[in-house]
Amino acid sequence: MTPVSKRVQAADDAFRAIADFYDALAEKRRDGDDVCDFTFGNPNEMPLPPLVDAIRQRAIPQDERWYAYKSSDEESRAFVAERLSRELSLSFEPEDIVFTAGAFVAISIAMRLVLDAGDEALFSEPAWFCYEPMLLAADAVPKKVALKPGTFDLDFGAIDAAITPKTRLVIVNSPHNPTGRIYDADTLRALADLLDRASERIGRRIFLLSDEPYRRLRFDGRDFVSPASIYPWTLISYSYGKVLLAPGQRLGYLAVSPLMPRSEREPLRDAYFSTAMALGWVFASALMQYTVPDLEDVSVDIAALTRRRDVMFAALTEAGYEMLMPEGTFYLFGRWPRGAKDPWRALADRGVYVLAGATMNVPDYFRICLTATDDMVARALPVFREIAQSA
Amino acid sequence: MTPVSKRVQAADDAFRAIADFYDALAEKRRDGDDVCDFTFGNPNEMPLPPLVDAIRQRAIPQDERWYAYKSSDEESRAFVAERLSRELSLSFEPEDIVFTAGAFVAISIAMRLVLDAGDEALFSEPAWFCYEPMLLAADAVPKKVALKPGTFDLDFGAIDAAITPKTRLVIVNSPHNPTGRIYDADTLRALADLLDRASERIGRRIFLLSDEPYRRLRFDGRDFVSPASIYPWTLISYSYGKVLLAPGQRLGYLAVSPLMPRSEREPLRDAYFSTAMALGWVFASALMQYTVPDLEDVSVDIAALTRRRDVMFAALTEAGYEMLMPEGTFYLFGRWPRGAKDPWRALADRGVYVLAGATMNVPDYFRICLTATDDMVARALPVFREIAQSA
Repeated sequence: MTPVSKRVQAADDAFRAIADFYDALAEKRRDGDDVCDFTFGNPNEMPLPPLVDAIRQRAIPQDERWYAYKSSDEESRAFVAERLSRELSLSFEPEDIVFTAGAFVAISIAMRLVLDAGDEALFSEPAWFCYEPMLLAADAVPKKVALKPGTFDLDFGAIDAAITPKTRLVIVNSPHNPTGRIYDADTLRALADLLDRASERIGRRIFLLSDEPYRRLRFDGRDFVSPASIYPWTLISYSYGKVLLAPGQRLGYLAVSPLMPRSEREPLRDAYFSTAMALGWVFASALMQYTVPDLEDVSVDIAALTRRRDVMFAALTEAGYEMLMPEGTFYLFGRWPRGAKDPWRALADRGVYVLAGATMNVPDYFRICLTATDDMVARALPVFREIAQSA
Repeated sequence: MTPVSKRVQAADDAFRAIADFYDALAEKRRDGDDVCDFTFGNPNEMPLPPLVDAIRQRAIPQDERWYAYKSSDEESRAFVAERLSRELSLSFEPEDIVFTAGAFVAISIAMRLVLDAGDEALFSEPAWFCYEPMLLAADAVPKKVALKPGTFDLDFGAIDAAITPKTRLVIVNSPHNPTGRIYDADTLRALADLLDRASERIGRRIFLLSDEPYRRLRFDGRDFVSPASIYPWTLISYSYGKVLLAPGQRLGYLAVSPLMPRSEREPLRDAYFSTAMALGWVFASALMQYTVPDLEDVSVDIAALTRRRDVMFAALTEAGYEMLMPEGTFYLFGRWPRGAKDPWRALADRGVYVLAGATMNVPDYFRICLTATDDMVARALPVFREIAQSA
């Protein structure tokens, strides 16, 4: 019998689709200059020079305690509170923010802050493939509802119907992975109304986790409205790993909406420390915290992402793929041509790797990561066309 | 009513003694060159130059994926497997090891790997003040037994009596924080026998977590034997933060004993990834993983720690404190002079800060951290004497 706990086993099972995908990828993948890897949000170009410079510069110790235990660096936290306040038109206090080892950890802290074992958390599919295993490892109950077919809008009827007296958290991810949708203010107001009514109905406040790691990655000058400015009971998870394309460096934060009543806002932020400590002192490293002010305005090249999006969207649409025009993120989401036989494998056989929708419970769809190079895009397009023609 | 989950609240409550200590310290503490801070395992001297050099050098990207998502770096993992095998005279495979954001995270992973909600984990007091809140946040049940009075040896009778059918994990910390004791091979063999018999009695294998962050910090050329070489069902948590005195950089690992039967060893290490992912992708940062081979032989100055230990041990013993001679760690543990009235506060009033034993459930004791400077030691000794004389 396995010595592994049931909860880790459950998390492992929930991650099975993506683990199987990894295995299929490993089996297919070959090295070489002709490989076109569009799978995950990883860099395919050298790291941004300002990132490297900031790390190297801030690594030079300024005092004896430079590498001492660090929860949230006061200077960087005050900096983020000020800049985030401007960005979201809210008044964050430094204490609203805790620096975490990536948004991943911010989500993990949020889940434990408000969920006890057996509590339910709700999210919409297709979704990032880690919400479910994370909830299961935390002994919480994932409740999944489908986004609306075709448009991938939030389905308010389905969300409302899925709320039970045990619902404690609803996760919203905008800009949305994998669809690239950004939910506008009207949508978020309707969601806030729904959550207000549902909270009253069940007699307990439902919290909202606004997972915003792609907040800065938007196309065509689109607006972003954070749910934190509309629904007061909102926690924000944010990552620097996307905008800097350096997910290995584990830098993000959790923030509580300044609109939340003090009676709830203060206990939540007072519990940041204990939660992060008890999870394994999962604050961001001292060094990465020091780099925060240096990196505020650094970003991957959004013009290049836009160019790749437009080239691929046009070519794939013409070839017979049903693509959804992304408003944000660095993903392009679409549907395989009708009648295509095992198109993922057919692409992979030709050295073009995309993320299979089966990993996100939408087997007819696939996701392309636009952090590819222009050259990869140029080489992949004929392969995409070939697969569509053979359908 | 607080919106904070019961489990986080429980962790917070269990951390209350140390949080109260922080508050008392913050209230007392004044800045200035005359302050002598012996509280926590933090640096009081500039970071080790080889650490800074390694970070700055390894920050220079060698390829496009340098800062991509990193679970365990293959090269560094193979390196550690080889060096750890030599150090502990065991045959580690790279897959036995997972790099974590500090030993803290390694402990957190171990707790979730083998414990389900309601399972019991046992440790001996005085202990590191985070085991208990970590277990509570993981919905596990902490069971505490006292170390033997005076000698602070493991109390086998008490351990055996505390084991129930729900016991799944026993935590042993050697070299021991706060006492500085190192458990010898005979002690560990007796513990292994006890755990074997108890596992048979309860019909379920009890795992051992060997928390070894101070493994390299030993005085007087003392030996170290890891429980992993004696009890096959052992997991090791290790930190680079102690030996490098850089706890803010979050680098450590979890390893499974190569002596563990394959039927249990392989499922455990196969579950490393899902556990670390589901906790929030709590692998060490890419950059710190790259520094591992550079830092293998780097250490704080153990001769300086020894000198401070000897000076303080002699002076405090003469002054009327009952000190325990530490065999390892960078701590010095002792008992306040009998009859001393609120000695912690009296010291603090004079700018000398030590860790109060009340934070570890031994209110008659205190812990001195030897990562102080020689100058702090020289300035503090008269203050210690003064407090003892007024007792």
